[in-house]
Amino acid sequence: MITLASDFGSPYPAAMKGVIRRHTDAELIDVAHDLPRGDPRAAAFWLRFVLPEFPPAVHCAVIDPGVGTDRDALVVRAGSHVLVAPDNGLAMPPARALAGESGGESGKGNDDGDEAIEAFVVDVDEPASETFHGRDVFAPTAARIRAALDGGPAAATPEAVSDALSAMDDLSPATDPVDLVLPEPSVERDDAGDPVAVEGEVLAIDRFGNVVTNVPGELIRGRDWVRINGELTPVAETFGAVDPGDRLVTVGSHGYVECDVNDGRGDGAFDLRPGDSVRIVADNVSL
Amino acid sequence: MITLASDFGSPYPAAMKGVIRRHTDAELIDVAHDLPRGDPRAAAFWLRFVLPEFPPAVHCAVIDPGVGTDRDALVVRAGSHVLVAPDNGLAMPPARALAGESGGESGKGNDDGDEAIEAFVVDVDEPASETFHGRDVFAPTAARIRAALDGGPAAATPEAVSDALSAMDDLSPATDPVDLVLPEPSVERDDAGDPVAVEGEVLAIDRFGNVVTNVPGELIRGRDWVRINGELTPVAETFGAVDPGDRLVTVGSHGYVECDVNDGRGDGAFDLRPGDSVRIVADNVSL
Amino acid sequence: MITLASDFGSPYPAAMKGVIRRHTDAELIDVAHDLPRGDPRAAAFWLRFVLPEFPPAVHCAVIDPGVGTDRDALVVRAGSHVLVAPDNGLAMPPARALAGESGGESGKGNDDGDEAIEAFVVDVDEPASETFHGRDVFAPTAARIRAALDGGPAAATPEAVSDALSAMDDLSPATDPVDLVLPEPSVERDDAGDPVAVEGEVLAIDRFGNVVTNVPGELIRGRDWVRINGELTPVAETFGAVDPGDRLVTVGSHGYVECDVNDGRGDGAFDLRPGDSVRIVADNVSL
Repeated sequence: MITLASDFGSPYPAAMKGVIRRHTDAELIDVAHDLPRGDPRAAAFWLRFVLPEFPPAVHCAVIDPGVGTDRDALVVRAGSHVLVAPDNGLAMPPARALAGESGGESGKGNDDGDEAIEAFVVDVDEPASETFHGRDVFAPTAARIRAALDGGPAAATPEAVSDALSAMDDLSPATDPVDLVLPEPSVERDDAGDPVAVEGEVLAIDRFGNVVTNVPGELIRGRDWVRINGELTPVAETFGAVDPGDRLVTVGSHGYVECDVNDGRGDGAFDLRPGDSVRIVADNVSL
Repeated sequence: MITLASDFGSPYPAAMKGVIRRHTDAELIDVAHDLPRGDPRAAAFWLRFVLPEFPPAVHCAVIDPGVGTDRDALVVRAGSHVLVAPDNGLAMPPARALAGESGGESGKGNDDGDEAIEAFVVDVDEPASETFHGRDVFAPTAARIRAALDGGPAAATPEAVSDALSAMDDLSPATDPVDLVLPEPSVERDDAGDPVAVEGEVLAIDRFGNVVTNVPGELIRGRDWVRINGELTPVAETFGAVDPGDRLVTVGSHGYVECDVNDGRGDGAFDLRPGDSVRIVADNVSL
Repeated sequence: MITLASDFGSPYPAAMKGVIRRHTDAELIDVAHDLPRGDPRAAAFWLRFVLPEFPPAVHCAVIDPGVGTDRDALVVRAGSHVLVAPDNGLAMPPARALAGESGGESGKGNDDGDEAIEAFVVDVDEPASETFHGRDVFAPTAARIRAALDGGPAAATPEAVSDALSAMDDLSPATDPVDLVLPEPSVERDDAGDPVAVEGEVLAIDRFGNVVTNVPGELIRGRDWVRINGELTPVAETFGAVDPGDRLVTVGSHGYVECDVNDGRGDGAFDLRPGDSVRIVADNVSL
């Protein structure tokens, strides 16, 4: 199996699939091709969320604002999974999740498995284009890796995957791959241990303008109102709980707090961009 | 084969696919993941339109505004097809079409096959999340059903599918599944039997704002103008037949009358929402 | 393998897949279903870009503004590839590229292979609908062709594919298929042979309003500014290089010059539509 993720929209991913089909008949599964444009951190967030659901596979993830520069093409082994991505850090958060993974719907990975991660640099020939390395570099690399793994990663031990990668002529150990660590929120609790305030950060804006933070949803569980950077905002399970144009706070399906507007854009209303701080304070606590 | 339909957008369906791949290698086909958000009736309309084209399969359809409440997870057998969906009625209109189906492009199903429908409730363990039962409940249920059907539904008789479902430990007969009957329009005809007026209803608004009604397109066949709730509107085959910003009535590829605006939103221009009445009157008949 | 391309959006392509699955288990790969609506020329451009990446396959491409008229349904063999499409010319530019193709990422096809192209007309029974020939005509035709090619086009020689098509009862040689030749830009060069001005044309507007021209990107390589129809415009590698709302010229991943606006629509700002002329002049040359 090869999964594909990018910010390419359409029809560019089909060109990657065509290239892959010249190398292998392995199944192709799209993760997403509408990831936030040129934002490796947002991609890392989404891939850390989605990829651990899969059995071991080759994951080709191309969010590549540095295409055409001398940034490396990276191959990262995480347990029996393999990630193929530009060396801008996006592969590391999902790799840590995949390396610690214990399988299945509820048994998501954790970030403890660094020792199970190996990184390689791809020795890239002059690619056919300066702008479409998804087609010219990453897709064929993913395909050749998959073809080298008889039966695919799911059929192999981490050691067998490691051996197969080490035996590939055009891969050499990466000496200093770019890392990207997704920020963790800091939580202030009251004497009973209940959360009263959280300092978080915006991880991603989705295409509807919803602001995805790094604040776990359970921290606002049971609250009707919170203050978002000082502004009193209702907590709701659905957009329709507030009038069109009104702001709300929800917990997205990814489990993190979102700052949204019903039938509008949260990024504009809350004036938030990726990387901005978000302070969430329980409503019964004065600022 | 497992088909997948939802209102999840991206990349959530990929998480469902990852979960399914831990259970079965069955082919995955996306029906749509941009169905109208939280609208089981619109989903029922679209699935009734699309699913009868498929040979028998497991269809996993998650439009689930009640996620996190105590609504049941439902499994519905319709002939040799199996639908897995929240118990909000969305499965029933496509199930009736699938139960009566006779196969192939033109031989679409009909709604007479109620006796061929069986419903089961899924005995759900505590899911990993309160908000993403697509991943935590419906996808693994669909996968386990598919895995239990050696060769898949297309290779089995309705009886064999029924036996397989009845043998599953976590399925028990549904005593009172929610039904959802898509409304039928009422037609007034002249002495010659030609339709002169139709009382219909808005079934869905698509993402372009096009208003899909339950009025079959043949009822306006050959008309140049009709009145939509009193307003004289041209009937056209293409949006480009009217100026940008102008209203028109078309027959969509689903075969039903749509109220649209060229390069604009029909829902706003016609002031129509799902569930609203639409009276369509032939132009040569006075109101 | 069967690839699918259309301007249908969602969920219509799933109906095509269901129909295909009644005929064959061949792999299905989506090229794009958001191609510019009703624009065979834009589709021809995109398919000429994407399809040559694939190994020989059956490609079903339905951009069909003439659906319901008496336009023919066409089957075009190009080498070992087969295209199934309405007879509006869209199949010809990709067919020429596929006929001349020499395989692989960098070895894209060329347009010299006319002799390797054969066109057939499909003898169509009365279809089930007047508006959805993607489901009723093109998908089943593609499926039956694929089923007739034991092992698929990739396993067959051009001669074997030709023989298989000629043996099909409902295909007869096309006497005068519509051709559509994508325009080539004309280039003015200085005494040193460097390009100083290009007369090009708008091939497509993508869904973000980006204006895709037929001008190869290398013609503006190394320029910081160019004049677009007289208007001085910066050349940039990324949208973010200019302020939101500002115009820029980029080279898209397809390799052609685009006229864009950062966080806005290039078609509006440059007042350009498909078919319009674009004169691009190097900035150090007076107009």
